Amino acid sequence: MLTSIRISEAEYRSRCARLQEYLRAQGLAGGVLFDSYYILYYTGFAFMPTERPMAFVLNAEGETALFVPRLELEHAQANALVGRVAFYPEYPADPHPMETLRQLLADMGVAGQGAAFGADQDGYPWILGYRGPALSELMGIRPARLIQEIEDQMAVKTPAEVGLIREAVRWGNLSLTLLQRYTRVGATENEVSLRASAEATLALFDAIGPIYRPQSLIYGGPSANYRGQIGRNAAIPHALANNITFRAGDVLGGSGDCAAWGYCSELERTMILGPASDAQRQMFEHMLALQETALAALRPGVRCCDVDREVRGYYQAHDLVGYWKHHTGHAIGLRFHEGPFLDIADTTEIRPGMLFTIEPGLYIAGLGGFRHSDTVLVTEEGNEILTYYPRDLESLTLPV
Amino acid sequence: MLTSIRISEAEYRSRCARLQEYLRAQGLAGGVLFDSYYILYYTGFAFMPTERPMAFVLNAEGETALFVPRLELEHAQANALVGRVAFYPEYPADPHPMETLRQLLADMGVAGQGAAFGADQDGYPWILGYRGPALSELMGIRPARLIQEIEDQMAVKTPAEVGLIREAVRWGNLSLTLLQRYTRVGATENEVSLRASAEATLALFDAIGPIYRPQSLIYGGPSANYRGQIGRNAAIPHALANNITFRAGDVLGGSGDCAAWGYCSELERTMILGPASDAQRQMFEHMLALQETALAALRPGVRCCDVDREVRGYYQAHDLVGYWKHHTGHAIGLRFHEGPFLDIADTTEIRPGMLFTIEPGLYIAGLGGFRHSDTVLVTEEGNEILTYYPRDLESLTLPV
Repeated sequence: MLTSIRISEAEYRSRCARLQEYLRAQGLAGGVLFDSYYILYYTGFAFMPTERPMAFVLNAEGETALFVPRLELEHAQANALVGRVAFYPEYPADPHPMETLRQLLADMGVAGQGAAFGADQDGYPWILGYRGPALSELMGIRPARLIQEIEDQMAVKTPAEVGLIREAVRWGNLSLTLLQRYTRVGATENEVSLRASAEATLALFDAIGPIYRPQSLIYGGPSANYRGQIGRNAAIPHALANNITFRAGDVLGGSGDCAAWGYCSELERTMILGPASDAQRQMFEHMLALQETALAALRPGVRCCDVDREVRGYYQAHDLVGYWKHHTGHAIGLRFHEGPFLDIADTTEIRPGMLFTIEPGLYIAGLGGFRHSDTVLVTEEGNEILTYYPRDLESLTLPV
Repeated sequence: MLTSIRISEAEYRSRCARLQEYLRAQGLAGGVLFDSYYILYYTGFAFMPTERPMAFVLNAEGETALFVPRLELEHAQANALVGRVAFYPEYPADPHPMETLRQLLADMGVAGQGAAFGADQDGYPWILGYRGPALSELMGIRPARLIQEIEDQMAVKTPAEVGLIREAVRWGNLSLTLLQRYTRVGATENEVSLRASAEATLALFDAIGPIYRPQSLIYGGPSANYRGQIGRNAAIPHALANNITFRAGDVLGGSGDCAAWGYCSELERTMILGPASDAQRQMFEHMLALQETALAALRPGVRCCDVDREVRGYYQAHDLVGYWKHHTGHAIGLRFHEGPFLDIADTTEIRPGMLFTIEPGLYIAGLGGFRHSDTVLVTEEGNEILTYYPRDLESLTLPV
C-alpha cells in the first residue's frame, strides 16, 4: 500500500474503543460530542464549525455516526471514519435539526426512555447565529460530562501523533528561518511574514504534498509571523498584527508554527535587530534561564504545578515578578493550546507522551517582550525538545 | 484630528446605551457577555479567545468593564472602550478566575443578593482546555438570555459599518482579480492563492495601512483561495484546501474575502478553466438565474423565508432540487456567517441596513460546484450589490 504519515484507521478505532469502554463502565448508553476537535480526534474528519450543528455519536455497542447538514454529507461520507452519516437539510429548518439528532440517538439506543448518556457539552454551542435546545431540554435528561475522560485520553500522545508534530516542527522551523533571514531595518512585518510563510508553504507541498494535509482551521501550512510583537509592542503577548516597520534596536517576537493532519507545533524566538543593549542582553539571558529551569523540572512523575513553581521561584529569586505575565506553558496537540497547563494551580501528574510548550516570558514596558517557546515531549527519562531552532542570543541577533 | 475609517467612540457608546436601555426595561441589574464578537461589538477590543476566560460587563447605570487575564491587561487598557479593566493572574488559578468575575459583578451591582441579571451564555465556553463553573452555579441564579436583543442590534448595520464592509470588498476584489489572473493549467492552488493573497495584502497596507486594522481572527488582510473547490471537488462546498493542480476543463470556486476593523466581506465566483462544456454552461446559467431570483426578492418588508422560497421555487421549476445543498445566504458583519438566514425556516422581517450574502449553489457530482456569492445591502428601495466583480460566464472563463 501507499505510504502515509496520517493516523491509521486502527488508531482511530482504538480511540473509539477506549471511549466505548468508559461509557460501559459508567453505565451510559452512549455519548454525543459537538466539539470539532473531539470529532477530529475520534473520526479523522476536519471541518469548519459554523451555525450548522454537527456531532459525533458513539453508543455502548461501539456503533458510530456523524450528524451533519446536507452541505457536509459527501464530505463526511468520504472522510469520516464512522459507521453511518445522518443528515438534516439545513439550519435553520422546521423541524429543528436537533430533532434529527434526537431521532439518531433513539435509533442508536443512546437515549430515550430515560436512558443515561454522556456528552461533551449540553448541546451545540450558540455560534455564528445558531440557536437551539440544550440536550437536556431535548432529551429530558441531563447528559453526564465526558470531558475528563476525553481530555485524559488526548493528553498522552501516541508515537504516530508525536510523529505528526515532529513533521509540523520542521516546516515551522523553515518558516522561522526565512522570517529571520528576510527581516531587516525598513522592511515591514507583512512583507517579511507573507514571503516567509508562502515560500515555506510551497516548499512543504513540493516536499510532502502527496502525503500531507493541514487538517487545521488555523494553519494551511507553515506560518511565520510577528503578531505585532515588535519593538515596544513586544511587551503585549497576544497583540494582533498591525504591520510595523522594523527599526534598529527592536526586540522581535517571531514564530514559526505549522500543523500536520491537524497536529500543531509551536516555535517562538525572541530576536534582536542589531547588537543587544545591556538591558536587552540581561533580560534575554534571564528568559533563557527561566526556560532552562522549566526544562530541568519537566519529567514523568512530577506534577504540572511543580514545574511552574520552580519557574516562579526563579522570577522571585531574581526580582523579575513585575515582568511576569503568564504561566510556563500549555499542552499542545490537535489544539494550539490545550490542557493540562504548566501552572501552579494544575496538579495533573506529568506522564510520558505528554507534549508541552515551554515558554516563560518577561515583558518590560519600553524595552520589549522576551519569550522563546519550544514544543517539548515528555519521555520515560525526562524530556526531548522537538523544536531545534537555535536559542542563544548570538544566533538570534540580526544584522543592521 | 487625523482621519479614520474605524467605528467612532460615539457609536460604541450608543451601542452600549441601547443595551443598557434594554437591561433597564427588563428589570436586569446588568449583563455579562463572553462571546468575543459581542465584546468586539460593544468595546472595539479584538482578541484571540483562548482557555483564559474574558468577559464584558455592563450595568444598568451604564458602567462598563472588561474582565481579562493578566496577559491581556495592557492590551485591553490600550484598546477597549470600557470604564475599567479587571484582571485575574492566570488560568488555571486558585481561586478560580471566575471568583474575580464574581467580585467584579458584585462591585458593579450587577449580581448578588439574588439580583436578576443577563448574559449571552451561562458561563465561559469550555474551549482549549478551559473548565469552570456556569454563571448560574457561580451566582446562584440563572441569567436571562440577552442573545435576541444583541443579535437584533447587530443585524441592522449603521452607515459606518457598511462603510467598513465596502472597504473590505475592494480588497477582496483585488485578491480575486489576482487569483483569476494567475490561475492557469499546471499551476497549483497554493502557489496561485498565496501569491494573490500576499500581493493584495501588501497593496492594501501600502494604500491604507495607517488607517486600517484587520481586527479579525480569520483575515489578516485580503485572502483569495479555492478552498479545494476545484474540478470534481468543487461539488463539496466547504472542503478544506489540498493543493490541487489546475487542469483544463476544471470548474473553479474562487473567493476573495477580507475584513476591515473586524467587518467581513464575502465574494465568490465560479470560474471555468477553458471553454465551458454545454453541461457546464447550462449549470452556470441556472446558477446566475438563481442569484437573480434572490436579488429580485430581497427588499425591506419581506421575510427571510420569502426570499429563500422564491429561490427554491426556481430549483423545483427547473428540476434542480437534486443539486441543492444549502439555503440562499446568511447575514454578514463582524462574523463571516451570522443570522438572520435567507432560509425557508427564518421568518425574520428584512429591514434596511441588513447585509446578506446571496449565494444559491448547484453541486453536481462529476461536473462540479456552481456558486457565486455576493455581499448585498438592503436599502430603503430594495438592495445594493456591494461586490462588483463580474458575474457573467465570459468574464469568468479562463484561457487555456
